[in-house]
Amino acid sequence: MKKSLLLLALFPALASTYAAADEGMWMPQQLPAIAAELKAAGLELDPNDLTELTEFPMGAVVSLGGCSASFVSPQGLVATNHHCVYNSIAYNSTPENDLLAKGFLAATMADEVSASPGSRIYVTKAVDNVTANIIDEKTDALSGKARVDAIENNQKALVAECEQDEGHRCSVAAYYGSLEYYLIKQLEIKDVRLVHAPAEGVGKFGGDTDNWMWPRHTGDYSFYRAYVSPEGKSADFHEDNVPYTPDFHLKLAAEPLEEGDFVMALGYPGRTNRHRLPSEVSNTFEWSYPNTVSHYAATLAVIADATQDNKDAQLKYASRVAGLNNYLKNRQGMLDSYGQTDLLERKNAEHTALKAWATSTQANRDAYAADLEAIETLLQQQQAQARADYLLDNARPRLLGTARALYRLAQEQTKPDAERKAGYQQRDLPRFKSYVTGLDRTFAVEVEKALDLHNLTNYLAQPKAQRDADFDQALGLTDGMTKVELVALINSWYDNTGLTDLATRTALLDSAPGQFADSNDPFLQAAVALYPGDRAQEAADEELAGKIQQAYASYMRAKIAFMQSKGQAVYPDANSTLRVTYGNVAGRGHGTHDGTAWTAFTTLRGITQKATGEGEFNAPQAQLDAIAAKNYGPYGVAALNSVPVNFLATLDITGGNSGSAVLNGRGELVGLAFDGTLDSIISDWDFNLDNTRSIQVDSRFMLWQMQMVDGAHHLLEEMGVAQAN
Amino acid sequence: MKKSLLLLALFPALASTYAAADEGMWMPQQLPAIAAELKAAGLELDPNDLTELTEFPMGAVVSLGGCSASFVSPQGLVATNHHCVYNSIAYNSTPENDLLAKGFLAATMADEVSASPGSRIYVTKAVDNVTANIIDEKTDALSGKARVDAIENNQKALVAECEQDEGHRCSVAAYYGSLEYYLIKQLEIKDVRLVHAPAEGVGKFGGDTDNWMWPRHTGDYSFYRAYVSPEGKSADFHEDNVPYTPDFHLKLAAEPLEEGDFVMALGYPGRTNRHRLPSEVSNTFEWSYPNTVSHYAATLAVIADATQDNKDAQLKYASRVAGLNNYLKNRQGMLDSYGQTDLLERKNAEHTALKAWATSTQANRDAYAADLEAIETLLQQQQAQARADYLLDNARPRLLGTARALYRLAQEQTKPDAERKAGYQQRDLPRFKSYVTGLDRTFAVEVEKALDLHNLTNYLAQPKAQRDADFDQALGLTDGMTKVELVALINSWYDNTGLTDLATRTALLDSAPGQFADSNDPFLQAAVALYPGDRAQEAADEELAGKIQQAYASYMRAKIAFMQSKGQAVYPDANSTLRVTYGNVAGRGHGTHDGTAWTAFTTLRGITQKATGEGEFNAPQAQLDAIAAKNYGPYGVAALNSVPVNFLATLDITGGNSGSAVLNGRGELVGLAFDGTLDSIISDWDFNLDNTRSIQVDSRFMLWQMQMVDGAHHLLEEMGVAQAN
Repeated sequence: MKKSLLLLALFPALASTYAAADEGMWMPQQLPAIAAELKAAGLELDPNDLTELTEFPMGAVVSLGGCSASFVSPQGLVATNHHCVYNSIAYNSTPENDLLAKGFLAATMADEVSASPGSRIYVTKAVDNVTANIIDEKTDALSGKARVDAIENNQKALVAECEQDEGHRCSVAAYYGSLEYYLIKQLEIKDVRLVHAPAEGVGKFGGDTDNWMWPRHTGDYSFYRAYVSPEGKSADFHEDNVPYTPDFHLKLAAEPLEEGDFVMALGYPGRTNRHRLPSEVSNTFEWSYPNTVSHYAATLAVIADATQDNKDAQLKYASRVAGLNNYLKNRQGMLDSYGQTDLLERKNAEHTALKAWATSTQANRDAYAADLEAIETLLQQQQAQARADYLLDNARPRLLGTARALYRLAQEQTKPDAERKAGYQQRDLPRFKSYVTGLDRTFAVEVEKALDLHNLTNYLAQPKAQRDADFDQALGLTDGMTKVELVALINSWYDNTGLTDLATRTALLDSAPGQFADSNDPFLQAAVALYPGDRAQEAADEELAGKIQQAYASYMRAKIAFMQSKGQAVYPDANSTLRVTYGNVAGRGHGTHDGTAWTAFTTLRGITQKATGEGEFNAPQAQLDAIAAKNYGPYGVAALNSVPVNFLATLDITGGNSGSAVLNGRGELVGLAFDGTLDSIISDWDFNLDNTRSIQVDSRFMLWQMQMVDGAHHLLEEMGVAQAN
Repeated sequence: MKKSLLLLALFPALASTYAAADEGMWMPQQLPAIAAELKAAGLELDPNDLTELTEFPMGAVVSLGGCSASFVSPQGLVATNHHCVYNSIAYNSTPENDLLAKGFLAATMADEVSASPGSRIYVTKAVDNVTANIIDEKTDALSGKARVDAIENNQKALVAECEQDEGHRCSVAAYYGSLEYYLIKQLEIKDVRLVHAPAEGVGKFGGDTDNWMWPRHTGDYSFYRAYVSPEGKSADFHEDNVPYTPDFHLKLAAEPLEEGDFVMALGYPGRTNRHRLPSEVSNTFEWSYPNTVSHYAATLAVIADATQDNKDAQLKYASRVAGLNNYLKNRQGMLDSYGQTDLLERKNAEHTALKAWATSTQANRDAYAADLEAIETLLQQQQAQARADYLLDNARPRLLGTARALYRLAQEQTKPDAERKAGYQQRDLPRFKSYVTGLDRTFAVEVEKALDLHNLTNYLAQPKAQRDADFDQALGLTDGMTKVELVALINSWYDNTGLTDLATRTALLDSAPGQFADSNDPFLQAAVALYPGDRAQEAADEELAGKIQQAYASYMRAKIAFMQSKGQAVYPDANSTLRVTYGNVAGRGHGTHDGTAWTAFTTLRGITQKATGEGEFNAPQAQLDAIAAKNYGPYGVAALNSVPVNFLATLDITGGNSGSAVLNGRGELVGLAFDGTLDSIISDWDFNLDNTRSIQVDSRFMLWQMQMVDGAHHLLEEMGVAQAN
């Protein structure tokens, strides 16, 4: 209790020390504390207005779960990134009608198509500090698994209460390494439809080659529309549903954006790690990321090989391939940057100083010393476990994961809802259903077999003692089995499983545990066999997690107090909740190559420069013709002698910010954030203003492409763009 | 006569109108006229001092014939580009002792080696306007061949008189399209020795890939030393020769060079074409350059194929390959730029305006109209001839060229020296001798055979009527001959020629025409057979040239008068004479790729970025180690956190400027110009300040490499670099 009060007391003072640095993913309620800095940077709105989640502009900002987005019309039109709706385009594509390649434009609302199963639009309605409810006095006295269970029970109670308001989804988010908890209440829009996506040669122009790169020329925008029941309530897809009327929507900027201008991104950044301990930094950069990089690269190779000459399979795995490539480049980029920094040395020095401070007085010693020592040991234990399980974790067949999840669900469903494990409650069933329904769209037996063979071969190459005996037995894996034997075993699973069948999977959502146990399905049998061991492991993990939560919160408390004692500030790491980051449109004095720099804007010229007519640089001919003819419409910028395509800014964003509305100082939409540059993504761990630049698609390019090339006049009219005619 | 007076009268007024634009290759004597602009740009020296060719700093600037250079020590040490001494390094290289790869550093003067045969250092001693002597009243009354002959005789007389001063070489250079003539008197230093060249991985780092490119990291510097007889006279190589003591030498800058600083390049720019007629522009860019590009590309492919796995032949052709690649990229770059400009439209508009002005008054009509009409017809005639001869010109075997030159020499030597054709006089014999002597170093029969086969095949593919009957007959080429027959014919030439033998070639320098006629050598026989036709063609060419000289001079006179009438200025196109260009150190707002810009300096970091350990990016390990260790010595620049390697400036340079000393406002050496960027080389035809940047090797890099990597301390001491120890 007193921890969170302490922290809240710090905010006003803390905030200002960071403001000059463009660093910071601010909680909206923190903004008034940095009002002076926001004004100085160019914000013309009243910062107090930005704290109101149900007012303009925050009321227009939504989450897609993993991506950010915003309402841009009174009829529920939602703008986000092309890569955020990629699954939905793929879902509606077939080899004969490849919407990824051609793009999609619904001529009327009646032509709008369902987004991929499970697609959601979340409108944040309330964010409340519930630390006192989560870590109440009784919970704070507990440790280990008991503490975790108590926290979970408190969370579930709050969520259940919150979700009494029908059509809403509630969650409890941890801040400052579980030192603080907030209850987030979101309107959950379930009928999401695809309205418009440009051709992949626009929306994904540059592909994986340009991903994380500058100069950039990607038209990474697309549009969803939110639908609700005729009564205006959240509802599953129904033809009678009507467009949702948002309380607020963003308007497109009327004044041209220029280098140096104030900009802010409103969105849902996923995860940053700026407060991590030195051992977490070294474990991540010296063990975890290097292993991830090689595993992802191998996975991509297996998928490429298995989908060769199979257009259908390529479409099914397109989204996963894109995601893997994205992560791969991200992680490798971080590793490259890490090799050029003294991050670990600085972390060590900071932590040494923290530990010295924590033992400098009796009061400090009493408050922090034991936990600071404990957290190191506990993390080491957790890391050792992760390393031991690494090949096993990679080796589990995807359908085994499905079987384990469904069996767990069946087990949990034998209990009253409130007692079920979080994630397996009544409220979670729709997501299970979406998962079960959508699986076929991203699943091909031959590809999964190839992945299983690759991953299990690596797993089996370990000495028997390092393998998991339960896992081996459950799947029939034996010591020294040959490739031929392994292939035969894998084939036998897929020959005998019913999980590739939608009806079978759907039926399992309502099956009792006994029905699993009686099944001959090899994956279900394995899931049942692994269940007791899984639960024992989970209990052990939770015991450790409970200890870590306690010690980590104490570490953060110590860090905040220590930094305050030095006049320095702490803001919470990103945790997928609504944040605001502000900065300026800015090029960079040093480019990718020595002797070069980056300009703030790219232009249509670069598209022509890069266009090859195929693959990742397959700009549509109509677009190239419009560029060649200099048909800039009202979107040309004299100083650029072209239309701006993407622009750089000093915004502090990360994964999850994709699709974030980027506003100018008047709160008008000037672009959508969609990427960061490769040597700045280390900022997830270590913010560096010299390097860090976010990449946005300029709204002028979006409008130019829609009006001058793709003929999306009706959408421009809907967005109130005067020049549309 | 009155033409040149008119022109001279224009200079002071004209000069100032160009000064703000960084455009202009100024004759030293013009500089006082732009004194205000030079001061404003940052020149601290008195511009009047720059006009004195025998004072500092002009007295330190020399020509290598095709390259520029400068004295940098009191003992005749000459700094120039690595690519300007490339032949000399290759000449001293063998497969066993590859100085190109390893670099060369003479430990003492005794270890300095002879430059390649024919290498010269020319010190300009006097430049005098001799237009009145060349186009005297009698000559001005002549036309056609008679005019050409008279001009040549006047030139020869002036040159002969000038060269009475032993050890000097004199020449008459035409300015403003032969409207003006200047007599240039140069001390000719014949004993040139190689002192130091860095490894090719430094001096040619980036190779053809980076040629004409930015960012650039080429250490394009090397050192010669001038030697003279013990009496201080020009002399051929002799072991008793001593280092030449120049009147003046340049000193290295003590203050660090920064972006925005004033710089000027002193050198010998070869050829620009800023005053060309529209038809010359279109002929060049729409016929000549495209054909050159494909011919050079094909030649390079033939050489690559023929020298594969033959290290000896590779070394012999290394210089030619480098030259061809250089020209190829240059010409292609010009073509690319041409495609993006409206140069021809502007030229046409300008010329239309000129023609309108030339007929606007009776006086103008009388003075210019006829010549303006005539020059178009004459140039068309010349262009038609060149197109007809194109494949023939490419198809002549190299040894046939040698044979023709030697036979022509023998013919001319039957006349008194003064009556001989220019180029075949007594004064030209040493160059013939060098050519004959040096041939073996750059000649391999198998490569020449392959080139002959390629070029003759193209030539023979023409219908008989388009071919040259004399040429066919002289070489034994027949209509419809097969490849096998052609190969056999080519083989027979090389089997039976004596021209591959040095003694034979040398003897021919003193042979009488009859000895050629009696020879069975196929190339000599062909040369004799072609001689009458060659002379007839020469006479026809000279008849045309005489008409063109007259009309072209008149066109230039009209253009100067027209531009003066509009208050605009004209400075002479480059013509391999000493010029000064000034500007500033400056990056560029737009880079090679849309979304990038260029910084003014590159740094050592870029070398490490580019180094691959092989081929064109084979940076020496010792250099990479020094970079990694941040051993910057006194040459590090804090703002760059490194040593500057190359820098960009707005200097107006072209081929021939290679090796030009680049001085700061105090006249101190800050670098050597060695290249321009690809999209600025069109400036040979059309200067564009937005694009045009010269590339210099920063003297700090040169000193850093010499001191911290290559151990050339004694040269630094000789140059008076204080930090050398």
